[in-house]
Amino acid sequence: MADKRFFTVAGPFTAEEIAGRTGATLAGSGNGKLALRDVAPLDAARPDQLSFLDNRKYIDLFRKTGAGACFVHPDLASEAPKGVALLVTPEPYRAYALAAQAFYPEPPPVPGIAPSAVVDATVELGEGCRIEANAVIGDHAKLGRRCLVGPNAVIGAGVVLGDDVRVGSCASISHSLIGNRVRIYPGARLGQDGFGFAPDRNGFVKVPQLGRVIVGDDVEIGANSTVDRGAGPDTVIGPGTMIDNLVQIGHNVQIGRQCVLVSQTGISGSTKLGDFVMIGGQGGLTGHLNIGSGAKIGAQAGVMRDVPAGETVIGAPAIPAREFFRQVAALQRLAKKRDD
Amino acid sequence: MADKRFFTVAGPFTAEEIAGRTGATLAGSGNGKLALRDVAPLDAARPDQLSFLDNRKYIDLFRKTGAGACFVHPDLASEAPKGVALLVTPEPYRAYALAAQAFYPEPPPVPGIAPSAVVDATVELGEGCRIEANAVIGDHAKLGRRCLVGPNAVIGAGVVLGDDVRVGSCASISHSLIGNRVRIYPGARLGQDGFGFAPDRNGFVKVPQLGRVIVGDDVEIGANSTVDRGAGPDTVIGPGTMIDNLVQIGHNVQIGRQCVLVSQTGISGSTKLGDFVMIGGQGGLTGHLNIGSGAKIGAQAGVMRDVPAGETVIGAPAIPAREFFRQVAALQRLAKKRDD
Amino acid sequence: MADKRFFTVAGPFTAEEIAGRTGATLAGSGNGKLALRDVAPLDAARPDQLSFLDNRKYIDLFRKTGAGACFVHPDLASEAPKGVALLVTPEPYRAYALAAQAFYPEPPPVPGIAPSAVVDATVELGEGCRIEANAVIGDHAKLGRRCLVGPNAVIGAGVVLGDDVRVGSCASISHSLIGNRVRIYPGARLGQDGFGFAPDRNGFVKVPQLGRVIVGDDVEIGANSTVDRGAGPDTVIGPGTMIDNLVQIGHNVQIGRQCVLVSQTGISGSTKLGDFVMIGGQGGLTGHLNIGSGAKIGAQAGVMRDVPAGETVIGAPAIPAREFFRQVAALQRLAKKRDD
Repeated sequence: MADKRFFTVAGPFTAEEIAGRTGATLAGSGNGKLALRDVAPLDAARPDQLSFLDNRKYIDLFRKTGAGACFVHPDLASEAPKGVALLVTPEPYRAYALAAQAFYPEPPPVPGIAPSAVVDATVELGEGCRIEANAVIGDHAKLGRRCLVGPNAVIGAGVVLGDDVRVGSCASISHSLIGNRVRIYPGARLGQDGFGFAPDRNGFVKVPQLGRVIVGDDVEIGANSTVDRGAGPDTVIGPGTMIDNLVQIGHNVQIGRQCVLVSQTGISGSTKLGDFVMIGGQGGLTGHLNIGSGAKIGAQAGVMRDVPAGETVIGAPAIPAREFFRQVAALQRLAKKRDD
Repeated sequence: MADKRFFTVAGPFTAEEIAGRTGATLAGSGNGKLALRDVAPLDAARPDQLSFLDNRKYIDLFRKTGAGACFVHPDLASEAPKGVALLVTPEPYRAYALAAQAFYPEPPPVPGIAPSAVVDATVELGEGCRIEANAVIGDHAKLGRRCLVGPNAVIGAGVVLGDDVRVGSCASISHSLIGNRVRIYPGARLGQDGFGFAPDRNGFVKVPQLGRVIVGDDVEIGANSTVDRGAGPDTVIGPGTMIDNLVQIGHNVQIGRQCVLVSQTGISGSTKLGDFVMIGGQGGLTGHLNIGSGAKIGAQAGVMRDVPAGETVIGAPAIPAREFFRQVAALQRLAKKRDD
Repeated sequence: MADKRFFTVAGPFTAEEIAGRTGATLAGSGNGKLALRDVAPLDAARPDQLSFLDNRKYIDLFRKTGAGACFVHPDLASEAPKGVALLVTPEPYRAYALAAQAFYPEPPPVPGIAPSAVVDATVELGEGCRIEANAVIGDHAKLGRRCLVGPNAVIGAGVVLGDDVRVGSCASISHSLIGNRVRIYPGARLGQDGFGFAPDRNGFVKVPQLGRVIVGDDVEIGANSTVDRGAGPDTVIGPGTMIDNLVQIGHNVQIGRQCVLVSQTGISGSTKLGDFVMIGGQGGLTGHLNIGSGAKIGAQAGVMRDVPAGETVIGAPAIPAREFFRQVAALQRLAKKRDD
């Protein structure tokens, strides 16, 4: 059970109710009236709790689980121990997510402005906003309804947030227009100057950075990630895109919808990503590239050329995955031969 | 045109005035009296706006630009569409930077200390400083003239800032002496303990970190970058050096003048860089190395040995670039041969 | 001598006293009564100062040092210049650490709560805590004795800190239970939601993150590092583990005791590390791996498979070090052959 100091559980729900909310099918033998009081991992779940098997790696834990009910893919349902009510679905992780949202609904922010928050008189706040202790909101910023601004966060002058935006502790945002239901995690930095300067006999000449950061609806930007504003064009993050922690987005980068950027990825200035692009952890892209929709870029890949839509690349310099693994194998054989 | 919520445009300037300020030459057919009201990207610029072509990749946009005037390299001037006043210069990006500075001059900070800022009574503030909401400045810190300390930033006890230093939102500085015209971006961390400990039977023994961070004039340190103070010697960043976001500088590192460190680079303890060294994104250098002046280190390079002055290295372990690309090609052929 | 603006020196200590505190042996000719007033690097040390030689790379500085006394390994003692009192020990760095701690003892926090700090009425503070300016501590948080919370730091609701914990400027902690003598550096982020979502026809479904971050005694977490809380299980960092700056720890990761994670390392969700694991800078580990105790993972390694206890791996994809360097050599020969 989740620690009561940090989480409050709702419910209980019957297995039937959970099936209804998640689109899973209750397998024949299961008791649909079973009262489920919480979600839990396979190895910790008890008879009144709900678990899930999503990764085949954990099938041994599934075989021994004490959970009262469990989401499972049809292909693996036969591995279940006796007495578990099976909630069968082709997407057990998605079903678990929906069930966990039912048990742990996110409470809306309790409206109010902390006395220590510094909110300029010209700020427009939608109804239901909560501004926490020592947060600072600059002049003419405009927040939609039910926004939550965490302690010690900074919203710069003129910034616009849509409805239901959550800004984490100590995050800062300037020169940005943010959509609805966006989550900015603690310590993320949006809208600061991009890395723009021109070489000169006597050093570097700073190039004024005159664009903005435009963030679509339902985007998440992870803890301590940095998104520079555009140099003239804008930096754009499309709706539904998920950005993990410590990711760098350079100026003028354009990211499409529902992309996934895993932690410590870096995208250099003016590169464009289509929709549904996935980048593994620590991936790096040089500037001015075009990455087609649906492209998959492996962890630690170093992308120096455009990637066509749907292509999977890996390595540094990044090449198509099939080619990469062929090269890995060839090198392995070469090194071994020498030993013989 | 830049968003008025965030930027205020100066001007207008005639093409002649811009030529004078930037050292560009107005090409024969251009109307020197043309009033320019703003800068804009090639594909958005209008007849009363100024643009630039710097990267050959964008020549198609140049051929169709609606800009009234445009900076361009002499080699590409012939590609211009009719009616554009050409401002010809061997350094179009530098010229654009100077022009953009004319249109968007950075206003000096409006002097004052926010009521919510916490400034110790022993702090020395030069004239014209602005200390924003909830910033904290510790005892005996000393700020030069016209410094701007952003909201929720922290300047530790004894820290010295030169004139015209700008410290971004939520940045923190301790144990540091900072030159003039330095910009510390939001969330950057300067002066905390380096990663110093000695192994011991029972764990690790912490090594007191007794040095400082010394930052030269005209340095920029990007958002969420970290610069540890020296362990005994100082950590030193030379004048004019540009450090991008999420860069790690270990203790005792010495960086010369006008180096460029692209995002997510990491430099381990006690490594020394000469002047004009460039490091691509996600480059990594182990400790105790000497990197000669003018060396270029590729993106994602893993440098484990000294690099002579002027050398270009790439790869992990990093080797001279020519050799690296030869190896890439050789491996490609080897893998292909196997397929045949 | 360390800058008096930032550090206060204790002492003096005689060479004999230092030998006693560190377990080093004073070499025959040395004057045990010599008063040592400070520690200093080899090239800056004076006759009343104490230095150390730990890295053979600096032996030339040792040969010329003006230090009054010096820690040195028995194998290198014969290289000492005349007149230096040698403090011989198989662990000169550890001995130096202990001596430096004697000269620069860390003062306990001066108890008190800054007037600008926002501490909820339900917070339990142990005796001797210091809460600095504009720090925010949420309801029902519980701090042990002598904790130091830096300016603009945020401790979330319900968080528990042990005794003698230090939280740096602008750091934030939520959903976490922290042991004794833990140091959280400036800007570190603990306890935010992990990167958890399930794909869906219409985008992504957020997976509630219901675990915590559990940090053992004597852990250090570097500046701007990020540790996500567990998704259901907890994220666990074992006692004595040292985490450098800008490191990413994903949800459900379990790290054993006395591991060392160098800067910019990233560990993906649900991966487990045993004890005494070392990871070089910018190392990356995919999710759901098991890394055995004592494993060494090279800088920039990309680990995609389990690593047995005691193994050293390097490269991307990571392979045993011996094999890696054999492949490097083989590729080098192959590329050269082509040139001939």
